Amino acid sequence: MGKSTALIEPRLPRGFVDSEAEELKAIEEMVGKIKAVYERYGFDPIQTPFFEYTETLGKFLPDTDRPNAGVFSVQDDDEQWMSLRYDLTAPLARYFAQNYQDLPKPFRSYRQGWVFRNEKPGPGRFRQFMQFDADTVGAAGPEADAEICMMMADTMDALGLAGKYVVRVNNRKVLDGVMQAIGVTDEAQKLTVLRAIDKLDKFGPEGVALLLGKGRKDESGDFTEGAGLDEAQAATVLDYVSGKQPADNEGVTELVAMQALFDAGGYGPDRIKIDPSVVRGLEYYTGPVFEIELIFPVQNEKGQDVVFGSVGGGGRYDGLVSRFRNEETPATGFSIGVSRLASALRLTGNLSSARTMGPVVVTVMEKERVADYQQMVAELRAAGIRAEMFLGSSKNLGKQMKYADKRNAPAVIIQGSDERDQGVVQVKDLAEGAEAAAAITDNAAWKMERPGQYTVPRGELVEFVKTIPAVAEWLRARG
Amino acid sequence: MGKSTALIEPRLPRGFVDSEAEELKAIEEMVGKIKAVYERYGFDPIQTPFFEYTETLGKFLPDTDRPNAGVFSVQDDDEQWMSLRYDLTAPLARYFAQNYQDLPKPFRSYRQGWVFRNEKPGPGRFRQFMQFDADTVGAAGPEADAEICMMMADTMDALGLAGKYVVRVNNRKVLDGVMQAIGVTDEAQKLTVLRAIDKLDKFGPEGVALLLGKGRKDESGDFTEGAGLDEAQAATVLDYVSGKQPADNEGVTELVAMQALFDAGGYGPDRIKIDPSVVRGLEYYTGPVFEIELIFPVQNEKGQDVVFGSVGGGGRYDGLVSRFRNEETPATGFSIGVSRLASALRLTGNLSSARTMGPVVVTVMEKERVADYQQMVAELRAAGIRAEMFLGSSKNLGKQMKYADKRNAPAVIIQGSDERDQGVVQVKDLAEGAEAAAAITDNAAWKMERPGQYTVPRGELVEFVKTIPAVAEWLRARG
Repeated sequence: MGKSTALIEPRLPRGFVDSEAEELKAIEEMVGKIKAVYERYGFDPIQTPFFEYTETLGKFLPDTDRPNAGVFSVQDDDEQWMSLRYDLTAPLARYFAQNYQDLPKPFRSYRQGWVFRNEKPGPGRFRQFMQFDADTVGAAGPEADAEICMMMADTMDALGLAGKYVVRVNNRKVLDGVMQAIGVTDEAQKLTVLRAIDKLDKFGPEGVALLLGKGRKDESGDFTEGAGLDEAQAATVLDYVSGKQPADNEGVTELVAMQALFDAGGYGPDRIKIDPSVVRGLEYYTGPVFEIELIFPVQNEKGQDVVFGSVGGGGRYDGLVSRFRNEETPATGFSIGVSRLASALRLTGNLSSARTMGPVVVTVMEKERVADYQQMVAELRAAGIRAEMFLGSSKNLGKQMKYADKRNAPAVIIQGSDERDQGVVQVKDLAEGAEAAAAITDNAAWKMERPGQYTVPRGELVEFVKTIPAVAEWLRARG
Repeated sequence: MGKSTALIEPRLPRGFVDSEAEELKAIEEMVGKIKAVYERYGFDPIQTPFFEYTETLGKFLPDTDRPNAGVFSVQDDDEQWMSLRYDLTAPLARYFAQNYQDLPKPFRSYRQGWVFRNEKPGPGRFRQFMQFDADTVGAAGPEADAEICMMMADTMDALGLAGKYVVRVNNRKVLDGVMQAIGVTDEAQKLTVLRAIDKLDKFGPEGVALLLGKGRKDESGDFTEGAGLDEAQAATVLDYVSGKQPADNEGVTELVAMQALFDAGGYGPDRIKIDPSVVRGLEYYTGPVFEIELIFPVQNEKGQDVVFGSVGGGGRYDGLVSRFRNEETPATGFSIGVSRLASALRLTGNLSSARTMGPVVVTVMEKERVADYQQMVAELRAAGIRAEMFLGSSKNLGKQMKYADKRNAPAVIIQGSDERDQGVVQVKDLAEGAEAAAAITDNAAWKMERPGQYTVPRGELVEFVKTIPAVAEWLRARG
């Protein structure tokens, strides 16, 4: 099959990657801890499919100027366009509207899953990535927003990040008040102003001033068009976001109510903090907005010390469900970027990165006796021990040992004809052997001593393997 | 936002569905049990992305006559075609070839994930579904195939299906021998013969005879073109698949070797059985093929008793990796259909279907005291108990009770001004209340007794809630 045709190059499209065991297990562990917090807060899981009708998803992606840019779309048999979801919020709005009659209201849910962006990939920027969202739909008050913020703080604590994060909170209505004060009413211009503010961490006040005015040229020479504010307008905005100028409107009232709940819950400003510079890039937010910032230092590509930065954000989006239902449906939620959070946890040492124990490898010394070796493997597995028979074609012990090493095997079992006649097996504890190897320099002495190697009666194989430290620890971890 | 435009109908494209909490938790539990067996067998997880280059995936889908049919494809910016994976085997072949130098050989892996088929959806037939695969790449001998079969049997046992399944095994080389004997050499005709045999369970020998010959018209009038064998040829094939005519070739030798391993491992024919009628629909199999059949009876759409049938299958595919590498790379594997297996487990009662405990609901009796209610919730959560404050707009206790009921709340907490003045809270045990309600018919007596309702000092709230049976059980299950 295909042998006569030209070879195909094994490669992936740009922006897509494979994941391996260590990473998958670490993420599973991390996700488990997040779920436990969300469940304690009363949130339940739901899962929506990857495809939705394109019109269902709407166009709420930031930084996409071309129509239809940013999403992967295909046309169905009946000519209707479907798209792969680009976030987990638009599908939730559809789900809630579709199942309105049956759902408890307010409806708390969490959703974990892959989303897709048809964008130019780059370092750390993928076209498929995982989000973990929690949302409360049908609750209008700031209590619901405050709850989400406290849940995020508790989640960071549960992940071992206490003291290394801050949940920053603002309100779009406050920003709207500032826009009104400076006379900006055009929706597109508003959005450009918001996105300029959002860059405060990255470019500082000077950079934001440029983005609020005529525009900004970056180091590569690319020019970003500005919001077109005059100097006085830009100064008012900058005064506000730097906290120099207090605002007063419905947004402030909501923030005060949220702060009261944070105080009552004992969430100090070291964990949750009102911050006028928080914007969030998405167009659909209508009230409180929030993000988790990790504040521990890392080095950027240029070797400069910067804080790790945002690992997720969210806010209130009261208009999203009303695209489907002819009434206002309040909603608020939060989205965590799973890979980015995992990278952060790896840096802080809060993600288990220990290599998983490989299987005990039973070597095949005599091809005609595979049933005997298979029997040993079966006994080990029945005792709950990871084990396998060597399935490669080589009968060379060295090659089989090398395989065991690559698999991170804790031990290797050997039974040639001599051992069989004596009713024994050789068990090599590979960790002990490796340790001894580091200490011994005399080759002859090595061969005499054979460190970590034990001759064990066949009938005692399983009990002996259980006493090998790496195996014992693995069994203990599994109860 | 969108308020002035026409409403969008909230709906999903055909063949895609949402999943809810009960199902997600049941599948998570099931998948956990499968993983534990695979890990014990020495298999490690990997994950590939959803998109691959279309040429990487190849065209190995059964029953697709149109070119490009069956897969969802999009053209990338650089004009190259990418497709959503339609199974987890083609991506594994790409992964193995791409990472050949670094991987241990043989390479054992398991992969769980969604796959996509751009096909006509129908009852129980989706365009997005989950598969759970395990494969050994780089092992040529029948020991590797036998190991996969034994792992499948152990997996079924671990899921509680002992006595309700059989792993059926055959070998494509045996079938090839039969083809040779009757003079069928055309690859397309061979495939039609194989697919005809594959329908033995469904249509019986008469139906298969028609499919081997001119063709078969089903009840709806649809005609399926046959393989065009004459009567003698068709009879030879039918004699073989019904076990009346033994074959003798390399395929038989491999089956004998596998049977020896099954015998040595104590896997009797009640668990793993050689069966000449097993074919598997995929074109790429080159040696042993296997499937898990669940043999307990269910009723089909017509109310007839049938066995549940296949929940997965696999086989040896030595040619798939050699599309990328200029050498033979033996491989064998198995794929479980996750939703179908979950349906089976639901029918046999082996899938936990108990509704998850909802949160303890703290009602909001006085809007200005949300900080107090929030405090109660925080205390309950800190003790590990699922809890939430009612976030809806209503202050009506009846509505809040109805919400709690819909959430499957174990208890409701109430503190109005009277209770606050007395320093107490009311705790309603909803299960106890519901039980009592079934027994009491006198409304006046009910109001006097208020079954399941307790007045508890505010300071003892958490300790008291812990004693409510549903909460105690939930806490116990989480250690």
